[in-house]
Amino acid sequence: MAAQKPSIPSGTRDFGPEQVQKRKYVLTQIEEVFKLHGFMPLETPTMENLSTLEGKYGEEGDRLLFRILNSGDAFKTMKEKNGSEKIGDFDFRPAHVSEKGLRYDLTVPFARYVVMNRNHITLPFKRYQMQPVWRADRPQKGRYREFWQCDADVVGSDSLLNEADLLLIYLEAFQKLGLEVIVRLNNRKILEGMATLHGERTRFVEFATIIDKMDKIGYAAVMDELHKAGFDMQSLNASEKIFSIRSDDFPNDYQNNVVLGALNDLEIEFEKRNIDFGLMGIEELKTAFNLIPEPFRKNVMLDPLLARGLSYYTGIICEVVSNEGSLKSSIGGGGRYDNLTGVFGMPGISGVGISFGLDRIYDILDELKRFPESLNKVSGTKVLLCGMDSAAQQVAFSLVQLIRKAGIASEVYPDQKKLGKQLDFANALHIPFAVIIGENEMKSGQLTLKNLTAGTQESLNIEQIIKKLS
Amino acid sequence: MAAQKPSIPSGTRDFGPEQVQKRKYVLTQIEEVFKLHGFMPLETPTMENLSTLEGKYGEEGDRLLFRILNSGDAFKTMKEKNGSEKIGDFDFRPAHVSEKGLRYDLTVPFARYVVMNRNHITLPFKRYQMQPVWRADRPQKGRYREFWQCDADVVGSDSLLNEADLLLIYLEAFQKLGLEVIVRLNNRKILEGMATLHGERTRFVEFATIIDKMDKIGYAAVMDELHKAGFDMQSLNASEKIFSIRSDDFPNDYQNNVVLGALNDLEIEFEKRNIDFGLMGIEELKTAFNLIPEPFRKNVMLDPLLARGLSYYTGIICEVVSNEGSLKSSIGGGGRYDNLTGVFGMPGISGVGISFGLDRIYDILDELKRFPESLNKVSGTKVLLCGMDSAAQQVAFSLVQLIRKAGIASEVYPDQKKLGKQLDFANALHIPFAVIIGENEMKSGQLTLKNLTAGTQESLNIEQIIKKLS
Repeated sequence: MAAQKPSIPSGTRDFGPEQVQKRKYVLTQIEEVFKLHGFMPLETPTMENLSTLEGKYGEEGDRLLFRILNSGDAFKTMKEKNGSEKIGDFDFRPAHVSEKGLRYDLTVPFARYVVMNRNHITLPFKRYQMQPVWRADRPQKGRYREFWQCDADVVGSDSLLNEADLLLIYLEAFQKLGLEVIVRLNNRKILEGMATLHGERTRFVEFATIIDKMDKIGYAAVMDELHKAGFDMQSLNASEKIFSIRSDDFPNDYQNNVVLGALNDLEIEFEKRNIDFGLMGIEELKTAFNLIPEPFRKNVMLDPLLARGLSYYTGIICEVVSNEGSLKSSIGGGGRYDNLTGVFGMPGISGVGISFGLDRIYDILDELKRFPESLNKVSGTKVLLCGMDSAAQQVAFSLVQLIRKAGIASEVYPDQKKLGKQLDFANALHIPFAVIIGENEMKSGQLTLKNLTAGTQESLNIEQIIKKLS
Repeated sequence: MAAQKPSIPSGTRDFGPEQVQKRKYVLTQIEEVFKLHGFMPLETPTMENLSTLEGKYGEEGDRLLFRILNSGDAFKTMKEKNGSEKIGDFDFRPAHVSEKGLRYDLTVPFARYVVMNRNHITLPFKRYQMQPVWRADRPQKGRYREFWQCDADVVGSDSLLNEADLLLIYLEAFQKLGLEVIVRLNNRKILEGMATLHGERTRFVEFATIIDKMDKIGYAAVMDELHKAGFDMQSLNASEKIFSIRSDDFPNDYQNNVVLGALNDLEIEFEKRNIDFGLMGIEELKTAFNLIPEPFRKNVMLDPLLARGLSYYTGIICEVVSNEGSLKSSIGGGGRYDNLTGVFGMPGISGVGISFGLDRIYDILDELKRFPESLNKVSGTKVLLCGMDSAAQQVAFSLVQLIRKAGIASEVYPDQKKLGKQLDFANALHIPFAVIIGENEMKSGQLTLKNLTAGTQESLNIEQIIKKLS
């Protein structure tokens, strides 16, 4: 076979030793917070039936799904379903050759799991899930085709204590990771209320889509678009304040107080017009916000214009961006969804969840060099045993077993090479110590322990070496 | 949309909280041994280019690969490559709609990684990798379509110290897991030598395939098949002993000594006929075996008939079976391959590796109830805070933050339900403690701490409770 020049698919990555360890560090920090808050782990299969995935993520989602070709004769169904003998008439639909797809997010599989296990699950069910997902998106900075999500969701409880608790998880986890973040917070019902105020509740998606452009096109252009779309922007009243306070400055009590003031005005408008859900939205937002303890509030930004896509959210929503580093896209987000399990035949179960984007968080921490010093090395080995000949290597192989019994990661250099080569290996892998075993050392039992960082060495027996390295 | 009755693809599984925790326990035990031996972690993408995967696992492997349908217009290439307008002439090859496949094992991606990163890797490179793989096999007991492998490989070193070290990893890991195993050990070169003795070296695969049936069809039938296939079984001499000592009894020094005796006889035959590679095979096997320390030798069974598939192995090979539990198929295996990276354009690099089958190890440990007692519970939460009304819940939400600061996993029951319901929840999740906060408790600051296992309760302030639970 001719030699191939190997490569990996676009948008995917290999993770070498240092990267794996740093990624695991981030995962562990987040997982510890999940556990501390009483969340329980779940893992779902990489492949889901397309019937589970399709139609759950909008048209774009269906397009970005990775589909698995059916096993066996993949084209059997396609040929059967197409009576015609002519290619021109042939219906080349993916559905005819594929029944499974790769996990696209962790929320839909979670909903599917809850429905399938409804008789075994105690509600409220608090689960966390940390697994890769796949999207056939165009790769770019901070966007991969295989990436990890770390989700925590509570299903089966309407209480706003859940929202507050999930916000705390964000704030505690990023504090542990040493990354300054802003959690933008809103309630979908407030936007729905505003859509009603200026038009109709049913036109909420259209309204939110225009509002969502505020950052990009600015206040005036948004007003213009809303007006052109037929929303009544004459009676701006309370909304005007809200439209104009959007800011990318670091949030502080002052700014949140301005928003709270504007929401009070909006509340009066909603009351006048009997927009109950709008009132409820403001009430919920305030309740959740007030449950956040003082020192964390500076990292929460009330943002009544936050829309967060147009997916299944129905209540409080949030989005996390880093205050540091060059990546300005969101590194987390979530919200409440009233009826996610309904599509799988289990209506009336409310859920609320958040998600951490592992890969973007990793990228930012890497850019800022925020990983603990101890992770900046390739190997975890503490000591390399260097035997100077075959007999010495055998002695080294016995000794390394004693060293490992003491819990010290250690290895014997396996090949018969000159000491210099063996020490080059240790240095390349940042292994801090080496034990040298030659003829003299075997006779006397006194081994040479080299401290490769300090450049010093001493003569010790194996017990002393183990004690020293422990 | 009509409600769907959800399901998951055949051969895949959801893992609930208890299962995830038990699987992680197994992974952690194995990973700790990998690290102790100086192995470094690697992770490769779920998707590989088909050019990397195809032709590496034999015909069966190509058939069992899960292929990803190309994104965009998946059928574009197919339509272009087929000039004809008639379906009958149409070439429905998967290659025309698919360029990527799911990881099938961890060895080929590792070889691909080594070649792609040859300029950044220090040899010998000792890596471990713990990730799922996918095969479109027919699901049955102990066989899944998505399953995890835990591999450790050394690439770039010919030393038999590596073989011995990998055997130690098996023996130490299963000792930690509390599972009695047998590691069958052989060298491909011995089988090749025997094939040469009775026929030709080039007919090794044929010879090994027949020998491999010994367990199923027995000694006489194997002899008969070999004879019919044209192997000269008249001059059986040394091989006869080896054919007849195969046993499924628990291995012990006695049995290994019998094998070593038979190998001595075989050595004499190899010498007579100048079968150098056969002699080398015996020498290597003895060397590796002698490096295993005494207490572990009873778990190693010299088995000169072990063939281990017909893949890329060229030297020492091994296979692990559990001595306990009902699953008799292998739970691990490995060996040396002389030239795995050659196919990717980097010849002459030798490798040796082992693999643990996580799912089968889990199944056996689960059947034998060998998991630590502490893992037999659903939730990791130590205390549930129960507020008796909305105000009490808010107090509970403040208190739970103090408890978590002490590192104690804890949660507030989020809904306003009667105490009985809240305690039912704690009991269902095996949460051992509950703190009850009602009107009296809020006034006095003395809270009720219930020990749900013992059925006792006492009145304590929050500091006392934290101290008690720490």
